[in-house]
Amino acid sequence: MRVGILGSGLMGGKLGTIFARAGHEVVFSYARNMEKLHELARNAGKNARVGTPREAAQEADAVLLAVHWSRLDDVLSQAGDVSGKVIVTCSLPMNEDNTELVVAHTSSGAEQLEKRIPKARVVAAFNTVPSEVLFGVYERKRKAGRPSLVYCGDDEGANGVAAELIEAAGFDPVNAGPLRIARYTEPFALLVAQLAYEGAGGPELAYRFERFKK
Amino acid sequence: MRVGILGSGLMGGKLGTIFARAGHEVVFSYARNMEKLHELARNAGKNARVGTPREAAQEADAVLLAVHWSRLDDVLSQAGDVSGKVIVTCSLPMNEDNTELVVAHTSSGAEQLEKRIPKARVVAAFNTVPSEVLFGVYERKRKAGRPSLVYCGDDEGANGVAAELIEAAGFDPVNAGPLRIARYTEPFALLVAQLAYEGAGGPELAYRFERFKK
Repeated sequence: MRVGILGSGLMGGKLGTIFARAGHEVVFSYARNMEKLHELARNAGKNARVGTPREAAQEADAVLLAVHWSRLDDVLSQAGDVSGKVIVTCSLPMNEDNTELVVAHTSSGAEQLEKRIPKARVVAAFNTVPSEVLFGVYERKRKAGRPSLVYCGDDEGANGVAAELIEAAGFDPVNAGPLRIARYTEPFALLVAQLAYEGAGGPELAYRFERFKK
Repeated sequence: MRVGILGSGLMGGKLGTIFARAGHEVVFSYARNMEKLHELARNAGKNARVGTPREAAQEADAVLLAVHWSRLDDVLSQAGDVSGKVIVTCSLPMNEDNTELVVAHTSSGAEQLEKRIPKARVVAAFNTVPSEVLFGVYERKRKAGRPSLVYCGDDEGANGVAAELIEAAGFDPVNAGPLRIARYTEPFALLVAQLAYEGAGGPELAYRFERFKK
């Protein structure tokens, strides 16, 4: 799969590296400086390269949107027309201080994004685990006991693409339903962040859903 | 510990039964009919009995609040003065149809409750798993691989009481911080409900937080 990374910060950089190592063709774009982008691509190996947001988006089978919420308009205007594209968003609708959601309860960041690019096929995923856990999960390899990763979206085909990427990253994809469920997954992401960064045990935190029958 | 149950429906009935079987002294109160209450107490064994909400609350070391959000004022007025009491709430602030939270984002049900009874010591717990999983977890017994259960509250002593009850029910208590974190745990509860009732695999769903280090 060709995966374009819009926003090559902590999440985008690590996920892009993992997708490249898992055999996908990755284009990193939109970081604070070009040097960082080139270093990312070098470290990620032969399947990774650097491009503009437009290149990252236009040739991609899946676009990972991993920018700070405040950069959304800017990155989308640089990416160009994304009609029909699968957009996997892990961007939480945070305020500038990263202390609070600016959209919640009666909407979600993912739904706002879908309104902003109604012809794209939006899936919310990868936003419910901290970037610190990603390499630990990916390098683990064993399939038994994999952590879960919830995703939600309204387009079945796009959901399938997201599930494939989730699986490539070493997680067990859990379909949480339509995109409006992001109203629950986004606050859940903040619960995970609270436990990861304020709790004891370190930030390498993931979660697993399990059934316990009598 | 003496545990008063305010609201002996699905959650309150099952948790009270589990607390009684685990050796706590339980008073069931506030169900739709007295017959149901007496049946609950009979099934729960020698540590359980039936009482009025006032009896359940006044003699308790911990009060489990497990009523529908719409019954909050009614049950609190029947319970009497709860100053100084540990109130463990699993009541989510749902609308009458149980389809949506009526409080979220800038507040939470737990915080609204604390405002309503400012002299009580409120902890939010047991609201993030469906009632269907409770007996499966309790009867499991093995300590390894226990599911997590998040709780949050502003009173350290009350948090300790809640953690003890969580442990008695077979879960691994996870302290998520101050009561305002209920703004994240309550939407998380709706995510769990979505996966339990709309997902594949049945409603006996719990979750576990785990670290994955490199």
